[in-house]
Order: sequence, then structure tokens, then C-alpha cells
Amino acid sequence: MDYLYMTRALDLAKLGIGYTNPNPLVGAVIVKDGRIIGEGYHKKYGDAHAEVNAFNNTKEDVAGATMYVTLEPCSHFGKTPPCVNTIIKKGIKKVVVAMEDPNPLVAGKGINILRQHGIEVAIGVLENEAKKLNEVFIKFITTGLPFCVLKTAMTLDGKIAAYTGDSRWITNEESRHYVHELRHRFTSIMVGIGTVLADDPLLTTRLDSIDKKNPIRIVVDTRGNIPLDAKVLQCDNNTKTIIATTEATNREKLKYIEELGVEFIIVPLKNNKVDLSYLMKSLGERKIDSVLLEGGSTLNYTALAEGIVDKVISFIGPKIIGGSSAKSPVGGRGIPYMKDAIFLKNIDVFKFKDDVIIEAYIKKEV
Amino acid sequence: MDYLYMTRALDLAKLGIGYTNPNPLVGAVIVKDGRIIGEGYHKKYGDAHAEVNAFNNTKEDVAGATMYVTLEPCSHFGKTPPCVNTIIKKGIKKVVVAMEDPNPLVAGKGINILRQHGIEVAIGVLENEAKKLNEVFIKFITTGLPFCVLKTAMTLDGKIAAYTGDSRWITNEESRHYVHELRHRFTSIMVGIGTVLADDPLLTTRLDSIDKKNPIRIVVDTRGNIPLDAKVLQCDNNTKTIIATTEATNREKLKYIEELGVEFIIVPLKNNKVDLSYLMKSLGERKIDSVLLEGGSTLNYTALAEGIVDKVISFIGPKIIGGSSAKSPVGGRGIPYMKDAIFLKNIDVFKFKDDVIIEAYIKKEV
Repeated sequence: MDYLYMTRALDLAKLGIGYTNPNPLVGAVIVKDGRIIGEGYHKKYGDAHAEVNAFNNTKEDVAGATMYVTLEPCSHFGKTPPCVNTIIKKGIKKVVVAMEDPNPLVAGKGINILRQHGIEVAIGVLENEAKKLNEVFIKFITTGLPFCVLKTAMTLDGKIAAYTGDSRWITNEESRHYVHELRHRFTSIMVGIGTVLADDPLLTTRLDSIDKKNPIRIVVDTRGNIPLDAKVLQCDNNTKTIIATTEATNREKLKYIEELGVEFIIVPLKNNKVDLSYLMKSLGERKIDSVLLEGGSTLNYTALAEGIVDKVISFIGPKIIGGSSAKSPVGGRGIPYMKDAIFLKNIDVFKFKDDVIIEAYIKKEV
Repeated sequence: MDYLYMTRALDLAKLGIGYTNPNPLVGAVIVKDGRIIGEGYHKKYGDAHAEVNAFNNTKEDVAGATMYVTLEPCSHFGKTPPCVNTIIKKGIKKVVVAMEDPNPLVAGKGINILRQHGIEVAIGVLENEAKKLNEVFIKFITTGLPFCVLKTAMTLDGKIAAYTGDSRWITNEESRHYVHELRHRFTSIMVGIGTVLADDPLLTTRLDSIDKKNPIRIVVDTRGNIPLDAKVLQCDNNTKTIIATTEATNREKLKYIEELGVEFIIVPLKNNKVDLSYLMKSLGERKIDSVLLEGGSTLNYTALAEGIVDKVISFIGPKIIGGSSAKSPVGGRGIPYMKDAIFLKNIDVFKFKDDVIIEAYIKKEV
């Protein structure tokens, strides 16, 4: 039954997707006499933790019950008091944890405190699922750097557009809806100036859900070539933009852009381009825990070569466009030999109707 | 139980893969009193049909039994006498057929004769599976043209080689083994002169099975640029080669090549290249029922644009190589707008370890 209750806790955790960043997604279930008597999840950054919400959602006596929670309960004062204190006080008998807190400063402390108070603790139930659910949090809390997903869309012959540049549409409606779900999930979305100049995209989340939330739009624009009427420069409280640029950009222009409500980050040059590793550090410092990279082929190559990408989501539309000059998802100079390619692991494949989606993780050297 | 017996008949039919061309793959099962009493399949072009083999493989009395056969029994004298006669003579009570014979000249005749002799006939059990198994036969018998499969292998960023041309290896051993299985299945394999000049491939079937059979190697070589020491020009009884060329090629060279045991076909020019539609007709006349196209990006584009391709098998290796000048599977001029792309249908996806394979059919206009 452990798996069933933990699956329920993970499902609850998922209800927080898009709202908890940079906090983790956490779900909790309280079980007594073979019956769920309380459920909760972390709903929003700054709000109560999953464990507290589960306690608040039951009117029954929780003394002697078992709690299933997808992440080790916290033992420190953050935005809310430590959950372990509440668990002890409420008389919980056993705690089943999917995974330890990945934060190296706190990992295991919550569990130790529970055990010191005579509470039985089991660790590792559906651990892989819990780790996947919180891959963004794990990367961010352990490195201070955002988790970066490269999203590409291509034809079955590997093109992101026809030779004319036309790319509407490579994928179907279901896939494009999924992209908007991804945008909702991610704290930021990153494109290059080339994409802004070519498509003038809005880069917002277009979903029908009421509580929609736009990712911070990050434009990599080494020389400040962004047109002042670009759609991404139209900001409001819910729709922010950061221009990542360098000293090469005219200060007057930056000042004007700043007056539009747009933030800018001055990044050092590396190979005559924005130093993306430096940029990632800057974004991490701004508590941006995740980046959805929807770049053109040049930015995508630089990002991969710089090692900032953690995961790739490749959409493949069921069509062939041909063209020796049509672009493919990753351009740049390229890697000369196949044996030195960037390798991927944990390949996952699924379909939206006739579109094929491949999700995979970058194999990083240890 | 119909489905179980027909599944068995289809499985038997598959044992003939690679040996029956241009005949269909056929399996047959004889069932009496809820028990299989005889099984057979068409083993090899010119040999006995599945029905006859099933009769020969039982020592029991088949009178009153039901026969399951994946294709409508033949009613004409070909290389062997008509199967319907045998079925009638043996006293079979009922025949279950997966699909009618697609040959427009004979379709339904075998079934009619059986019915005229008081035998019950059921049609359409696992029809789609049977049609897929015999997609080569169906195309060939109805059009006289070979069924053409375009096989490509690319990285997850859509490249068939690094910018240096290096392509070893994009896919893993399991995928490469599957390619050799495909070569075994197909009567011919087609490449362009570019591939011969770049890789000097052997294009044989490298499988451990005893009865290995090489596809006829077809080289599309408009101007006769093939080097006389190319590996594909080394022929023997089991390993044939056809050069598809045009009047542009030097006759003396063709004569020399012919003395090596290589056949050549002179094809008209179309847009300064071998007219592939004409070539397909010529191959069909030579009873070549299937072509596995393993071309470079230029030949692949011409083949797709000419409409000779029926199916695409795309191998995707879990790696990224980058490079704006690295080639992708389909080059050429290309189609200018996405709405006019070549569309694919019946998408099937599977994996060999971390390689992803997409099989799909070209949507042809009616």
C-alpha cells in the first residue's frame, strides 16, 4: 500500500506545478487504520507546506497515523516554521518519505530529528518518480543554477523551418498546447535576438486556466539589436522581460528599454557572444530556478557547447520539407566527430496524435 | 479463437520474409475439433503455397476441418496448381481468410469458387495485420512498381553526419542489425553515386543466419562517375548490382562495367538527373518488387519529390552533433512552405535501447 499512498502524494504535489518555484513540489497524505484521513500539497511559493496543509485538511485525530510525504520534511525556519515540529507535536507514528531533501546543508536533518523523537521513518518509496518531479528544484538547490531545458520542434527530416524560413506549423495543436504547459511550468523562457527579429514572438503562456502565469522572457542580445517595438518589450506585472546583453550595447538604448519596465543584465563577452554560463549564474542569483530554451539553431548550439542544458524535449512533426539550406535545431560550428557528440540518456518517447516527442537528459561528464 | 489461429498463420507467414519476393508472404493453419492439426507457410518463391504445405504437414484426416489462411487461396495455375482445388478435394468445411488477393485480376475469384463448392468462407480476420505484412506485394501486384522505403539515420538534432562528414556511428548495434534485417527483406537497395564516392559501401546483408541473401544493389549514377574499383561493382551469383545511368555516360565504361557482371539500365534524364519514376518502372519489369532507399540527402529529396517513396523508416540516435553545415536526411532544393510539406501517416514508434525508430507512410494524394 506504500506505493499507492505515495502515488497519491505525488499526484497532489503535481497540482502545484508552475506555482511553487523556486520551492519544490511536495504532496502529503495522512493514513490511519488503512484509510486516508488528510491530504495536502504545497500550493504556492511562500504558502504553507504540504504537511501543514494535510493536517489542516483533516478533522480526525491524527495521533498514531502514518504520513506519506514526497520530500523529507523541513527542519528549519524558512517562510514557515519547521514541519518536523508539527509532525512530532501531532503524534504521527510513522513517516514515509520518497526522497531526502537534496539541499546539502539540510539533507537528512529532518529525518534525524523525527527518529530522535521515536518516529519510525522509511525512505525511498517512489524515489525516482519524486526526483524526476523535482528535477528543477534538485538542480537549483544543489548548484544555485537554473535547470535548463532545450525545446526544439522539427520535421522528420530534421528541419526547424523550410528554406524560406516558414515554420507554421511543424507540430500539431496538442504539441503546441503542451509547449504552453511547459512555459507555465518554467520560471523563464529564453530566446536569441535572431528569433525576436524573425518572428517577433510574444512568448507568453496561452492556456485557458484561470491562474495563468507567464514565464520571465529572457532575450540573449549581445549587441542590443532588439527593436524598440518588439512584442517582448511590452511588460506588465505578470509579464516580465530580461535582456541579456554586453558592454557592446549602447547605454542610451538600455536606459530607454529600462524605462519600458524591462530589466537588463550586462554579461561578459565569450567568443564574441553573451557568456551563457555567467548569465545562468546571474539568473540563479535572481532566484530563477528554470529556463526553457526555445532558441534558434545558433543559440541552441552555444548553450549546448557551454554545458548549460540539462534536458532536451524534441517535438517531431510527421512531415518532410527537404532543402539543403533549411535549418536544423542545432547549428553553430558543430562537433567534428560523432564519437565526441553530446550524448543523451534516459530517453522517453511519447506521442500527441501523430507528433512524436522525445525527452532526454544530457549525459554530463563526472 | 479466430484471432488466435490467424495470429499463428501470420506468424508462420513471417518465416518466409526475404525469400518469397515477388510472391506474397502467406501462412496457413488447419484446425479440427479445437486443435491445430496442420501448419504451413510459403517458404520460397516458386515453392509450394502455404495451404499445400499445411496439408503436407499433417497425418490426420482434414475432412471437415477449418483452414485459416492469411491470403485468399489462389484459383489459377501459376508456378503451382490452384490451391482452391486442393482445399475442395480435401473436404475442408470452412476457410477463414485474412484478406482478399489484391491482384485486381483475381481478387475474389478463389473465394467464389470455394463458396460455389459449398465451403463456408469468412473474410477479414486480422485484415490490417495481413495487409501490413504484405504491403510490398500489394503495391507491386496492383501497380507493377516496387514498394520503396526510405531509410534514414540521424542525430536528435537532425544530422546524418558531422560537418566533417563523419557518421560513425549515429545509431547503436541493435539498430544497425535491424537495418541488415531490412536489407534481407528487400529485393533491392538503392544508393546514389555520392554515397559510393564518399563511403565505398558493400551494401550486403550482414546477418548470422545461414541462408543469407543479398539485395540487388542499385546505384543511381547519372553521369557514370562510379570508380571501377568500387566495392559495389564486385558481383557474384548472390550479390548483384544494377547501375542506373543515362546517355550521358561513356559507352566504353558501361561495357567494361558490364564485363564485371554488373547490369546497367539507361534511363532518360529528368531535370538533369536519372528519371526515378522511369527507373522504378524498369525495376518493376525486372520483377524487383521492393527498394530500400539508403540515399544521401540529394537522392532522398529527388525520390520524395518524384513520389516514388511509400514509407519512411527514420532512426534517431540519442546524441547531438550540431553544425550549420552538417547535412540532414533530406536536402535538395526543398519545399518552400510547411503547408505544402510531404505529410506522413500511420506513425509507429519503437526503440532499440536508446535509439528511437519512427516508421511512417507517405500520404499520397488521391
